[in-house]
Amino acid sequence: MHFSSLDDIRAACRDLSPGDDAAAIAAAARQAQLTKPPGSLGRLEDIVAWLARWQGRSPRLDRVDILVFAGNHGVTAQGVSAYPAAVTAQMVANFSAGGAAINQIARTVGANLHVVPLALEQATADFTQAPAMTEGAFLAAVATGYKAVSAGTDLVSVGEMGIGNTTAAAALAAALFGGGGSRWAGRGTGVDDAGLARKRAAIDLGLARHAALLHDPLASAAALGGRELAAVLGAALAARHRRVPILLDGFVCAAAVAPLAKLRADALEHALAAHISAEAAHRMLLSELRLDPLLDLGMRLGEGTGAALAVSVLRAALACHAGMATFAEAGVTNKSS
Amino acid sequence: MHFSSLDDIRAACRDLSPGDDAAAIAAAARQAQLTKPPGSLGRLEDIVAWLARWQGRSPRLDRVDILVFAGNHGVTAQGVSAYPAAVTAQMVANFSAGGAAINQIARTVGANLHVVPLALEQATADFTQAPAMTEGAFLAAVATGYKAVSAGTDLVSVGEMGIGNTTAAAALAAALFGGGGSRWAGRGTGVDDAGLARKRAAIDLGLARHAALLHDPLASAAALGGRELAAVLGAALAARHRRVPILLDGFVCAAAVAPLAKLRADALEHALAAHISAEAAHRMLLSELRLDPLLDLGMRLGEGTGAALAVSVLRAALACHAGMATFAEAGVTNKSS
Repeated sequence: MHFSSLDDIRAACRDLSPGDDAAAIAAAARQAQLTKPPGSLGRLEDIVAWLARWQGRSPRLDRVDILVFAGNHGVTAQGVSAYPAAVTAQMVANFSAGGAAINQIARTVGANLHVVPLALEQATADFTQAPAMTEGAFLAAVATGYKAVSAGTDLVSVGEMGIGNTTAAAALAAALFGGGGSRWAGRGTGVDDAGLARKRAAIDLGLARHAALLHDPLASAAALGGRELAAVLGAALAARHRRVPILLDGFVCAAAVAPLAKLRADALEHALAAHISAEAAHRMLLSELRLDPLLDLGMRLGEGTGAALAVSVLRAALACHAGMATFAEAGVTNKSS
Repeated sequence: MHFSSLDDIRAACRDLSPGDDAAAIAAAARQAQLTKPPGSLGRLEDIVAWLARWQGRSPRLDRVDILVFAGNHGVTAQGVSAYPAAVTAQMVANFSAGGAAINQIARTVGANLHVVPLALEQATADFTQAPAMTEGAFLAAVATGYKAVSAGTDLVSVGEMGIGNTTAAAALAAALFGGGGSRWAGRGTGVDDAGLARKRAAIDLGLARHAALLHDPLASAAALGGRELAAVLGAALAARHRRVPILLDGFVCAAAVAPLAKLRADALEHALAAHISAEAAHRMLLSELRLDPLLDLGMRLGEGTGAALAVSVLRAALACHAGMATFAEAGVTNKSS
């Protein structure tokens, strides 16, 4: 997939397949026969029907890919993060060496971890001064994310790494849903009060500087977002085209895919919010996106850790669906009989 | 362990070891060195410190035992369940054959499933007419649960099966924390409005009949509870004595262990509420017990399914703790440096 203009992305967004109702109905019909009161597995039952709907078949999770996109942010010059920008590349090296949280969780849930650094040596521009990315840089990052989703996978779980990127995400959320820095800025990796004030100010400066293009969700993403956010957007679009359900990690991922929801209300129906993070704006953003998070464990690390952890819930849901006996098979008296 | 009187249980409850502060502090100290912002793994960090505290060492989860206790309830004669009492034994057979939800989840999370039926052929008495159990029957069930916890295990996850047992659990919760059937009765496996009314009435009848002994938490458990609830209580007590942290499943398990909390305020510090179920009274009961549930997935099946699912979160937490690189090892710049 090559995107030569924002219009190409808009066109790709018009070409979204609906879910497979028949597959979802078949999954729900089997659930009703299994040895449990109807609905008693709660969201585990919903998950199976959702997997069936967006895979378009009897659901499986043989191959799960975790995609972690990394990028650097010029807005760190505004003193918005508790960590120096060099940490992004250091953490990518840590991912490669197997030493980060996401490595451990990926192994625990039986998923393949793919880390995709995006031009780390070339931070985006400081969005308080200029658009974060040129249109070309934005499109290239979207395409990188798009290509990272294999049609042969059963589920993708997306995450990100980028010092300064909760500031970019908050600015993008503000552009799309209104309100300024005071509404959307949070403490990210743990910024202090002064840092939080600088973060709010940077967001407000960015919104003012790029006010003329904030009516356009994709142009907003280019001006205020980041390469890793653009790649997450591309991955979400590819997942829909390739019939791969997608798990979203935290606040940054939610902001990254939000432009798709602005372009088309049903664009994220194949996406599940894996968790609600401790970043305060995340709950607001998921509410705007009408996504109901699966886990609430106070996590706020990023790297795709929350989404990866949720894979274990999906595996349990699918194991029940595939492995349980029916009332008839087990000779258990059903409620209605 | 043999209990020859309720006083023996009270004595066992006086003899509770405190947690191992040093082990918990050591775990937290390691967490602080790992390549992540402090606290950013949220409850996963708390879980590791909790495991360390109650195992009394560097935490591990090499052996995880799921214990599912099953019992039958005379109060089903009051029409309080959507399913006939015969289903308890049928589901125990389903557990043995590997066809139930708990079998699939146990396999997914790498835990050993042990099903312990308690005199299924002999239902407890209908508590609206007589005490559910004699003191001897209650003590025997507590001892069975106590013996089911091996000192060689790293974690126990407890669940239950028993048609009618949400009625017993609600009656016991009412006895311990006040309020009647209208406060504590819920829909259990899916009882209709008329069944819910019968359930409330049965609870109120039971509370009135046994009013004279409701000041005594253990006598209340014998009069209103059930064999599987008594076994869960015994398992929780054994876990504390044997330095085994314990995961509690839903409403019935919470009610089962509640007498311990009444006997001694810190008796459940080695217990974690694995999830909040869809049974409405569960949240109230956990609040009374000051337990903060880990998962909220709308599950209401019992069988230990919610607790078993939470094992996957504990495994991820421990994998991060054990496998992550420190800032120094990974050459990542720390915030404070």
